[in-house]
Amino acid sequence: EETIDSFAKKLKDLLSYQNDCPSPVTKTLSCTSVKAMGTLASCPTGMTATGCSCGFACGSWNVQNENVCHCLCPVIDWTVARCCKLA
Amino acid sequence: EETIDSFAKKLKDLLSYQNDCPSPVTKTLSCTSVKAMGTLASCPTGMTATGCSCGFACGSWNVQNENVCHCLCPVIDWTVARCCKLA
Amino acid sequence: EETIDSFAKKLKDLLSYQNDCPSPVTKTLSCTSVKAMGTLASCPTGMTATGCSCGFACGSWNVQNENVCHCLCPVIDWTVARCCKLA
Repeated sequence: EETIDSFAKKLKDLLSYQNDCPSPVTKTLSCTSVKAMGTLASCPTGMTATGCSCGFACGSWNVQNENVCHCLCPVIDWTVARCCKLA
Repeated sequence: EETIDSFAKKLKDLLSYQNDCPSPVTKTLSCTSVKAMGTLASCPTGMTATGCSCGFACGSWNVQNENVCHCLCPVIDWTVARCCKLA
Repeated sequence: EETIDSFAKKLKDLLSYQNDCPSPVTKTLSCTSVKAMGTLASCPTGMTATGCSCGFACGSWNVQNENVCHCLCPVIDWTVARCCKLA
């Protein structure tokens, strides 16, 4: 049952909580590029691949496990993963 | 006019609301790939295309209606849309 | 020290604050494309490049300063930047 004390505690928690709440409002989309030799480039932990770039003009790629860029042309010298997260 | 009852109701709503509020803090960028035969690949409802991949090494594409990848080379066998949303 | 008046003011602020708080919940990923002649295409202020598309079937590109797409093939007629932000 709700008592005056438990209600007061909830209110106190709520008032302290108020200061934390606005933080998500300021979140932005933060992206970076990772370049690697060969056909695979991995995003840093916590980031997701939104697109990939490949050497030798190749525009055929897929994304493995949502965070690894894989260039698909027969000859590839480098791969770039474009990686994003909320920050 | 504010009565004790209406004030108490607001407080009660607020206290139950507190549990819902933190959810945006934990939002992340969630992406997936959609592959289709031909020159067009559509993102699922609610997702936006952040990049496209095309068969035959083609790197020329545009995005239609913010959620459909369109590969532009004369010969294309498949198209992949890279699709993201907040979740 | 906490007085009844200061506590009441905090509560009043909190109740008015409640209406602002849900806004982040409704944030979505908003993207647009920018096409330019030549090898460079810049995203609008406040947006980040998540991928790039290049003329002449070229799939080799990098991102400069997180918001400019740069197509890398020797001959390029146009460049498209795919640009996203939270909105």
